[in-house]
Amino acid sequence: MATTTWTRHHVLSLADFTPEEYNTVLQTAASFREVLSRRTKKVPTLQGQVVANLFFEPSTRTRSSFELAAKRLSADTLNFAASTSSLTKGETILDTAKTYLAMGTDMMVIRHREAGVPQAIASEMDRLGVRVGVLNAGDGQHEHPSQALLDLFTICTLIDPDRPRLELLKDKKIAIVGDILHSRVARSNIWSLTASGAEVHLAAPPTLLPQLFAEFVTDTPGKLFLHWQVEPALQDADFVMTLRLQKERMTQYLLPSLREYHQHFGITRNRLRICQSDVKVLHPGPVNRGVEISSDLMDDPQFSLIQTQVTSGVAVRMALLYLMGSSKA
Amino acid sequence: MATTTWTRHHVLSLADFTPEEYNTVLQTAASFREVLSRRTKKVPTLQGQVVANLFFEPSTRTRSSFELAAKRLSADTLNFAASTSSLTKGETILDTAKTYLAMGTDMMVIRHREAGVPQAIASEMDRLGVRVGVLNAGDGQHEHPSQALLDLFTICTLIDPDRPRLELLKDKKIAIVGDILHSRVARSNIWSLTASGAEVHLAAPPTLLPQLFAEFVTDTPGKLFLHWQVEPALQDADFVMTLRLQKERMTQYLLPSLREYHQHFGITRNRLRICQSDVKVLHPGPVNRGVEISSDLMDDPQFSLIQTQVTSGVAVRMALLYLMGSSKA
Amino acid sequence: MATTTWTRHHVLSLADFTPEEYNTVLQTAASFREVLSRRTKKVPTLQGQVVANLFFEPSTRTRSSFELAAKRLSADTLNFAASTSSLTKGETILDTAKTYLAMGTDMMVIRHREAGVPQAIASEMDRLGVRVGVLNAGDGQHEHPSQALLDLFTICTLIDPDRPRLELLKDKKIAIVGDILHSRVARSNIWSLTASGAEVHLAAPPTLLPQLFAEFVTDTPGKLFLHWQVEPALQDADFVMTLRLQKERMTQYLLPSLREYHQHFGITRNRLRICQSDVKVLHPGPVNRGVEISSDLMDDPQFSLIQTQVTSGVAVRMALLYLMGSSKA
Repeated sequence: MATTTWTRHHVLSLADFTPEEYNTVLQTAASFREVLSRRTKKVPTLQGQVVANLFFEPSTRTRSSFELAAKRLSADTLNFAASTSSLTKGETILDTAKTYLAMGTDMMVIRHREAGVPQAIASEMDRLGVRVGVLNAGDGQHEHPSQALLDLFTICTLIDPDRPRLELLKDKKIAIVGDILHSRVARSNIWSLTASGAEVHLAAPPTLLPQLFAEFVTDTPGKLFLHWQVEPALQDADFVMTLRLQKERMTQYLLPSLREYHQHFGITRNRLRICQSDVKVLHPGPVNRGVEISSDLMDDPQFSLIQTQVTSGVAVRMALLYLMGSSKA
Repeated sequence: MATTTWTRHHVLSLADFTPEEYNTVLQTAASFREVLSRRTKKVPTLQGQVVANLFFEPSTRTRSSFELAAKRLSADTLNFAASTSSLTKGETILDTAKTYLAMGTDMMVIRHREAGVPQAIASEMDRLGVRVGVLNAGDGQHEHPSQALLDLFTICTLIDPDRPRLELLKDKKIAIVGDILHSRVARSNIWSLTASGAEVHLAAPPTLLPQLFAEFVTDTPGKLFLHWQVEPALQDADFVMTLRLQKERMTQYLLPSLREYHQHFGITRNRLRICQSDVKVLHPGPVNRGVEISSDLMDDPQFSLIQTQVTSGVAVRMALLYLMGSSKA
Repeated sequence: MATTTWTRHHVLSLADFTPEEYNTVLQTAASFREVLSRRTKKVPTLQGQVVANLFFEPSTRTRSSFELAAKRLSADTLNFAASTSSLTKGETILDTAKTYLAMGTDMMVIRHREAGVPQAIASEMDRLGVRVGVLNAGDGQHEHPSQALLDLFTICTLIDPDRPRLELLKDKKIAIVGDILHSRVARSNIWSLTASGAEVHLAAPPTLLPQLFAEFVTDTPGKLFLHWQVEPALQDADFVMTLRLQKERMTQYLLPSLREYHQHFGITRNRLRICQSDVKVLHPGPVNRGVEISSDLMDDPQFSLIQTQVTSGVAVRMALLYLMGSSKA
């Protein structure tokens, strides 16, 4: 596998990912996807190593995906769930991480409701001079890099199954629709998609996509566009990425109702008519059926890549753990 | 192992189990029981495969039994517990199952408080054309087939340890005592025991065994009898199966008190005197000591098969996972 | 490994540990610490065996340490957490343990908020004549032997990394500071440290170290001293063991405030000046920073052994599981 250039211990953000790094992840994931198609879906790569899933914010889906990725690399896994943890006993998060370090953890997969926690833990590991890799599995409204990488892998693999690579997305039009403001998935996707040279169109109600967000545009190498209606984003789009809508946005007076959201921004078969004829729809899950996407569209394999995304997730997470574990830096 | 005739992907109900299928499970479990008696209790049968325990209703005991069965077949296991799940985020149960499918799960063990959920998931898997086996680990008040199969294995093995088989129960008298109305264990046991040709006698207070239940009798190949007192069921019985009494039955005005229940239907040493002299008592656990069974009787190895049932459970669940995984259909 | 003399099935208390047993644990742990320094940190010692972590009182940290120890010996692990258990269904603790026994568990690691539960389970296993080892992972305010053994290993290894042994502590002065009254860690440490011939000085406010506790002294082979101020305990001390302060002690009127506790008994760099110049500080974790220990001291590798304790924990627990599994008795 093409790992000669990989020097990254931690995967915390896609903001500074290079095209070479994106392509190394994509190619490595492609070779692991091949492993997953065999009957015996395991490789001995990380035998005897320990991957600790430190989920300070609960998530069965993402935790299971990382746990499975680790197990298929033959690593041992430890699961930490905040609810039963000593955090309630007054220990700091860094102390918890250092405890898992001292037990002999080789890699930590971290989710936390506050932005910056995985970065803080990674910095502490570096300060201590230990070779422990930290992977951000979602931090507050900041980033969720493995989700964006699996989205990227899903799209690139659709275009060229054998050689998924960043360049395949050049000049593709990709719409991201939904609660951009609060979405760590959107933030990570904007980094990877603009890096690919795709045209990225964001669409959301103004309360979920403030004008201020536009300042973000100037720093990006690709092209980023903001829309407060969904149609200009969907027009001729090759891919439509939908985002999960947290129901608590209603009580925060950011949205009038789910029904109204669906009426104006929900993706339906009808609304896709202005896209490219082979348009595909993505969603990071779990989906609120009939809110972000109409229920029939979600189940239509002609349009929906949602199941493929989940499958890609295991391959991409195997690739990330593998690359972090073999980092030359 | 005798698997040539096994064509069942899913184990959802015993209603349509054939005598050949019962005997295949019994014989396969007998060979796995032999594995469990070795010091190294593992076989590589399911290496690289993933068994997901999707317990929408929590159960440490049954989940541990399935987890151990899967690990002893060298499968990787994923545990899903409803309380920390994305179900609270609005995803449907089918969506959850499809997510685990897309991650690469080979078999799903499902418990849910609503009857029919495992069947619905199995139908969806079949509709999708995927080879994923679904095992019902208890659905509402419907069925709990692996429990009834381990009860059957426990009884048959007692009669002939080397060749447990359905025919051994012909003309045996088996009493099932307790909350028949709400018991999925009783429903599954009625299928397997009547299929064996045993005489099955149900005994419960009328509120827990309505007359309506009698219509069930007409469809069964064996002989099924209903009693509103315990003595006629116990008279000359070879085996007495007791059922767990949910304490919430009191608040539902179905029972006056635990004490009164025990006085009229609790199994005691004294009450067993009218049974066969070598009568044995079973309970699916966990037992309310002094309610369904007197505490001393529960601990008396001369009468109690309760510990044997737990041990049988691992062997029978290994057999089911093995057979489902090697299904020829 | 030096296991020829090991005859102990269960590790429940250090009260009757012999010097030979302490030294066997220390030497075995030293050889496992060497395993942990390799890249592949596993040995096949307990392959095919099952270690069940029955944590009736939740503890992520200790459970992870035992889980990792078991996995590194290649055992399969089952985790039982009280919150999702059938205990809420009326089953007794002994019934739960017997269920795990019947499933085929080889060793049980037990934590419970009531003193004596691991002993009761061990007695039941012995009464049943089964070869299942029981390890007390903390019972009420009684004992926490694996914690005291890892503390002992941490200290002895510091003095002689290659040959940690009890005799190294002879005539060392060791202070134990904090909530002695409620601490199972302190109780176990008093047994091991006095057995070594060290001078053990306890220091706490009178509400957390009653005069009555002094009667304990007379039975100990070493020397045990009680102080109601911290300075006489710290004077010329070689090691200072601090104890976790449960915040609920405030509401029980045992302490005026955390601030006042820290002012009088908190360990700070300044307070350590009267100790030996190479004094080291221990804490079983999780630490309330700025209460039992000042935050800067906790992070200072010149003084703090806290991280080393966690690492020692995995090696010592591997040693205990290994020895219990190979017991000749």
